[in-house]
Amino acid sequence: MAYHYSKSLDLPFEKAVEVTIAALKAHGFGVLTRIDVRETLKQKIGAEFRPYVILGACNPEMAFRALQVEDKIGTMLPCNVIVQQHNGKTEVSAVDRVASMQAVRNQQLAEIAGRVRDELRAAIDELPGSQTQAD
Amino acid sequence: MAYHYSKSLDLPFEKAVEVTIAALKAHGFGVLTRIDVRETLKQKIGAEFRPYVILGACNPEMAFRALQVEDKIGTMLPCNVIVQQHNGKTEVSAVDRVASMQAVRNQQLAEIAGRVRDELRAAIDELPGSQTQAD
Repeated sequence: MAYHYSKSLDLPFEKAVEVTIAALKAHGFGVLTRIDVRETLKQKIGAEFRPYVILGACNPEMAFRALQVEDKIGTMLPCNVIVQQHNGKTEVSAVDRVASMQAVRNQQLAEIAGRVRDELRAAIDELPGSQTQAD
Repeated sequence: MAYHYSKSLDLPFEKAVEVTIAALKAHGFGVLTRIDVRETLKQKIGAEFRPYVILGACNPEMAFRALQVEDKIGTMLPCNVIVQQHNGKTEVSAVDRVASMQAVRNQQLAEIAGRVRDELRAAIDELPGSQTQAD
């Protein structure tokens, strides 16, 4: 099972980040955290890296329900959506909540994870570009 | 396989968050993000929840290595460590990177995930309290 859902976008990096955030919002996900990986690696260990951001997306109703049925599920929240520039291309990837939560044995949680996965995919599907194969 | 490593702490909530951050730092993990779940749920949907924070912990050298061998692994970074107050007790839980990354088929990544897991456990083991059973 692929652990992410990805799409190659016909947009420059910064614009891709902007439209991704807007698409997530339209599907009920607020962006609670934003990590600029390139800047963080430069600052912390002086490493050079390509443009790469990690957005922590959260649908508060679904997160609330998940926390009520599985109290440690915060170890896997929020849902990450990344945007990266790779070999001159821009690519967006959303974590697959069903795949990444397969170690959690909880049927009620699995149902919520399925809904979150569908909603994240719908947000990615709206972006202009073509779906890429999972690795 | 349990997806988290947890410990009940003999400390009030705020103090527990403070010593957890210090223990993570001592083991090479900086805290890049901090989500106050209680406040976020209150603000976004008016829901009442118990004290609960999600800390996004990152060891930059290990993250850099992981990103070099698996370009979409940012969908699972940083490593979450949560602190919550539950039935009058304070509990800390670190995500188990080996369990949560089992959907990713990459031997080089698995080795890094194993080291990250050991280091996170060592940080949790230093905190005053007793290990709790995984759910």
